Amino acid sequence: MKLAVIPGDGIGTEVTAEAVKVLDAVLPGIEKTEFDFGAERYLRTNDLLTDADVAALREHDAILLGAIGDPRKVAPGVLERGLLLPLRFALDHHVNLRPSRLYPGERSPLAEPGEIDFVVVREGTEGLYTGNGGAIRVGTPHEVATETSMNTRFGVERVVRDAFERAAARRNKLTLVHKTNVLVNGGGLWQRTVTEVSRDYPGVEVDYCHIDAAMIYLVDNPSRFDVIVTDNLFGDIITDLAGAVTGGIGTAASGNIDASGTNPSMFEPVHGSAPDIAGQQLADPTAAILSAVLLLRHLGHEAEAVRVEDAVESFLSNRGEDEMSTPEIGDAIVAAL
Amino acid sequence: MKLAVIPGDGIGTEVTAEAVKVLDAVLPGIEKTEFDFGAERYLRTNDLLTDADVAALREHDAILLGAIGDPRKVAPGVLERGLLLPLRFALDHHVNLRPSRLYPGERSPLAEPGEIDFVVVREGTEGLYTGNGGAIRVGTPHEVATETSMNTRFGVERVVRDAFERAAARRNKLTLVHKTNVLVNGGGLWQRTVTEVSRDYPGVEVDYCHIDAAMIYLVDNPSRFDVIVTDNLFGDIITDLAGAVTGGIGTAASGNIDASGTNPSMFEPVHGSAPDIAGQQLADPTAAILSAVLLLRHLGHEAEAVRVEDAVESFLSNRGEDEMSTPEIGDAIVAAL
Ligand SMILES: CC(C)[C@H](C(=O)O)[C@@H](O)C(=O)O
Ligand SMILES: CC(C)[C@H](C(=O)O)[C@@H](O)C(=O)O
Repeated sequence: MKLAVIPGDGIGTEVTAEAVKVLDAVLPGIEKTEFDFGAERYLRTNDLLTDADVAALREHDAILLGAIGDPRKVAPGVLERGLLLPLRFALDHHVNLRPSRLYPGERSPLAEPGEIDFVVVREGTEGLYTGNGGAIRVGTPHEVATETSMNTRFGVERVVRDAFERAAARRNKLTLVHKTNVLVNGGGLWQRTVTEVSRDYPGVEVDYCHIDAAMIYLVDNPSRFDVIVTDNLFGDIITDLAGAVTGGIGTAASGNIDASGTNPSMFEPVHGSAPDIAGQQLADPTAAILSAVLLLRHLGHEAEAVRVEDAVESFLSNRGEDEMSTPEIGDAIVAAL
Repeated sequence: MKLAVIPGDGIGTEVTAEAVKVLDAVLPGIEKTEFDFGAERYLRTNDLLTDADVAALREHDAILLGAIGDPRKVAPGVLERGLLLPLRFALDHHVNLRPSRLYPGERSPLAEPGEIDFVVVREGTEGLYTGNGGAIRVGTPHEVATETSMNTRFGVERVVRDAFERAAARRNKLTLVHKTNVLVNGGGLWQRTVTEVSRDYPGVEVDYCHIDAAMIYLVDNPSRFDVIVTDNLFGDIITDLAGAVTGGIGTAASGNIDASGTNPSMFEPVHGSAPDIAGQQLADPTAAILSAVLLLRHLGHEAEAVRVEDAVESFLSNRGEDEMSTPEIGDAIVAAL
């Protein structure tokens, strides 16, 4: 396996080291290339994501990313729009996969372990994330600013099919989340596509809820969900809430997947670079390690994925109240393998 | 006071009766006109909201609405786009006011009473709610569908000013929620407007968070919020989550306000028409009664607003575990006045 590693900024470098440690332990011989994308390189070279960067990434089977961003040094938005989102678009990461599970040993104010176990399949290359908007008379009392959500049958169908595949391999339930009562055009396309694709998956029960109602269900009854499929912005919103209701984003992993296999997919923890605690080995690498699980599974190393997942579960079930450093947690998970 | 009453569908009629009962008890002599808008009238006459309806509403000082919708009889979206949203647009209800409070006696899995007390000022006439979108090649593999968020300096500034006024009368903290790192045009307009208007309110502390981060704060630390100002769609999402974290939408009241005073403002519970429990007097009228409080306050009847609010608080603090019928709750609140 040729693995591209983008440790990034802040705690990104710390948690990525542990994820790599775990990968090396279960799958010896991974060939790794490190890429120094992020705030530091940007400040040094003014490069965000060059064509050469993208070409180099394409030489790899998968990408492991830590976290990008340092709001103290780079204005908010610059790295997001110049690096993170361009990566998703350049590598056609249309399936943004975000599992939500309350693991044994974890605490949530809202549920018991086992009650929360769903996957959000968030579209990653369309919607309001396409930079399709503009403004006139900026800074005057007559300013008008627009943002346009772009939705195509091609883009929606491929992610909906991916979600149905995942539902069929899980508990056979798929929930579309949208706001079809207001967003008639985009919502209509999503709704019709789900209905049509569902004919190919007669065993999968299809459900729908509006994004606002989804907020209430995620708090009051998260066990109603198995696979949620939704657009780019709704997926962004839902997955942070899902992280909060599963007791924190400490275990929230994600994959940015090109389901066609043309480009390498990218795996990263949902959490950010947390500059406030960076450099102190205080970060929890569990989400990064669970992102490595998604990576292993995506590349067909199912046995290794299960081994790591089991090790993480056993670690979470048995960890005491003591604070552990980032490498201590990585070592404990390696020991549990 | 000339009051327009739109009981609407399902439990809407039941809870509105109790809100009217309470209004009559604190402010004798209110002149009421009932309007039969909703699913029933639509099925009977095919009318959703006519020009004559709007003209008739304009003859009133305020509007009390129950709930609109009956998904068993009218397809989802029809009444929303034909009646509810046109009401907001025709009457220029640009301030969609949604207080969130955990009242004494109420239970939330996430907080203690007193810890949650914030107000969402949601823009009500712009954003993704303007019906500004379209689609080509509908139903073909080449379908493209768009939804455009419309934001104007005029529209954003008036709602931002309203939010600052409310913050200055509360705990002096205003949080803008948006997604400025992705929605550069719309987000930029909101961000700049808040910064500029803040110069007129030096005593109000200004805060910003992305919509995804707001999800986490609303679950983990809702007491950080005092006044939240946000756009139409983000406001829709946040207020349902706020309802869930304050232990249910049973006390979630709202106002659709034309802050210029040109048109009558409209007050309604956030909950829907709940056809499953309609006709059985099982609905909790508290949110409708708290909407009447917002109505009284909006029209300058502050003493009466406080009386009803105190009565609701005392009712919530003292209510036992017994289920009470809709009119029993209304009567108990009247008795507590
Ligand atoms: C950093 C930001 C652009 C990004 C997003 O909105 O997708 C993040 O919130 C995420 O969820 O990965
Ligand atoms: C019914 C629907 C159109 C409406 C909205 O989205 O504004 C509702 O969810 C609300 O919050 O009042």
